[in-house]
Amino acid sequence: MPRTTHFHVDVQFGDCDPAGIVFFPNFSRWMDAASLAFFMQCGVPPWRELVKTRGIVGTPLLEINTKFVKAVTYGERISIATHIEEWRDKAFIQMHRVTRGDELICEGREVRVFVKRDAADADRLRAIPVPEDIKALCT
Amino acid sequence: MPRTTHFHVDVQFGDCDPAGIVFFPNFSRWMDAASLAFFMQCGVPPWRELVKTRGIVGTPLLEINTKFVKAVTYGERISIATHIEEWRDKAFIQMHRVTRGDELICEGREVRVFVKRDAADADRLRAIPVPEDIKALCT
Amino acid sequence: MPRTTHFHVDVQFGDCDPAGIVFFPNFSRWMDAASLAFFMQCGVPPWRELVKTRGIVGTPLLEINTKFVKAVTYGERISIATHIEEWRDKAFIQMHRVTRGDELICEGREVRVFVKRDAADADRLRAIPVPEDIKALCT
Amino acid sequence: MPRTTHFHVDVQFGDCDPAGIVFFPNFSRWMDAASLAFFMQCGVPPWRELVKTRGIVGTPLLEINTKFVKAVTYGERISIATHIEEWRDKAFIQMHRVTRGDELICEGREVRVFVKRDAADADRLRAIPVPEDIKALCT
Repeated sequence: MPRTTHFHVDVQFGDCDPAGIVFFPNFSRWMDAASLAFFMQCGVPPWRELVKTRGIVGTPLLEINTKFVKAVTYGERISIATHIEEWRDKAFIQMHRVTRGDELICEGREVRVFVKRDAADADRLRAIPVPEDIKALCT
Repeated sequence: MPRTTHFHVDVQFGDCDPAGIVFFPNFSRWMDAASLAFFMQCGVPPWRELVKTRGIVGTPLLEINTKFVKAVTYGERISIATHIEEWRDKAFIQMHRVTRGDELICEGREVRVFVKRDAADADRLRAIPVPEDIKALCT
Repeated sequence: MPRTTHFHVDVQFGDCDPAGIVFFPNFSRWMDAASLAFFMQCGVPPWRELVKTRGIVGTPLLEINTKFVKAVTYGERISIATHIEEWRDKAFIQMHRVTRGDELICEGREVRVFVKRDAADADRLRAIPVPEDIKALCT
Repeated sequence: MPRTTHFHVDVQFGDCDPAGIVFFPNFSRWMDAASLAFFMQCGVPPWRELVKTRGIVGTPLLEINTKFVKAVTYGERISIATHIEEWRDKAFIQMHRVTRGDELICEGREVRVFVKRDAADADRLRAIPVPEDIKALCT
């Protein structure tokens, strides 16, 4: 079993749209929070520390895929179980399973890369090989 | 060629994250806006009208898939070209191509359904067959 | 001492802007969540129940005033202490004090009203006198 | 008459809450966008340029005050007229008047400061005197 962390969200009124259910981009927002929480619970420092010590700015996305199964509304609590399904040379696949009690709400699959700022042009971000020590912390 | 509409976004400071680039759930937010703009430009009334006349609450998502190619920052303008790639009995596939000038920024594929409130339980949303008249307006 | 409730927020990467600190409208979002949490912890049902039983849609704002003292970044936890400072005939003043440990981060003062939908035009919201039973639950 | 700029917002479905009206923190978000648009229309470079050339990170808020007059929903266009009401030594007062056609929707008053990163601790932001050249551009 790969290492799995859990992140909880209490859904708020302002997270919901005129249909009374969660406006779906919020699920992407919460999965992003669950992604960073995964790394921090594995012992990886927050990006604002890593950018100083190693130049790593974060783990932007190459691709997301989310399947929505049930709607959620405010006053409800959902949980996100997060693990890394696959480590590639320069990318990794992070999976998020969102549940409300026993019910599956949605599932997300993210392809992410670690990036540094380009030496010649600080406005450009460049993918780097997955750092071995971070990988070791997360498995 | 399927009918295609265009939606423009001026990216704001508050849309960007500590890495200085657009926080990616905002792309989902803008694609959702482009989705509704597509219907309204095709002559479909806003959901708050349709809910009164026909009980249609909106077009929630079954699935999204987004591929990110380039980053964007604030002060830049992006455009979203939207069309419907496929009409199924109860679902449709909407495509969004996001560009900055000639550059591809990201591409999104959404599977959506039209829904009404359940007659027995108004808190439940039920998928309905794609309304033929709406389909006719959009092709 | 008026009744006071507490609401906690773990600040996320996506809540922060390119300066690396919380994008300030998020404080309004969290105070709004703290406002509803106050009512629910006092035993008031969520708005989606009250709208069915009594027609009450929520407590929109007439005015907000927020003073910002210190910045906050992601990975930090803040707490919001909420109480009602004053009940008027048709409005009430809700106060939110946001802290990080012992430090004051910001303070918000909200003027809110209870609203119902207008009988003649469901798109219009109308302020109603503060319901006495809700006031009793909250003091 | 002080220099005034105009910023337009097409309100989206996802900007609205279960009551069907704009979730109010979005007004703060749009006023922040109008604030930066004001400076850029006056000829001030975006913060990501100023941080490189002069160390100026942005104009965070000391205080906001917003009065809400009418509700707005999606499919509607609002306009924000922005000007600077007062320049102090280290702060300035920026006013935003939000309208829909001839109707006043809300009015915001912001107290802001220009900040740089602290020389000794880059995570701290320090207010600086209002730069005279920026003030000259904006009046």
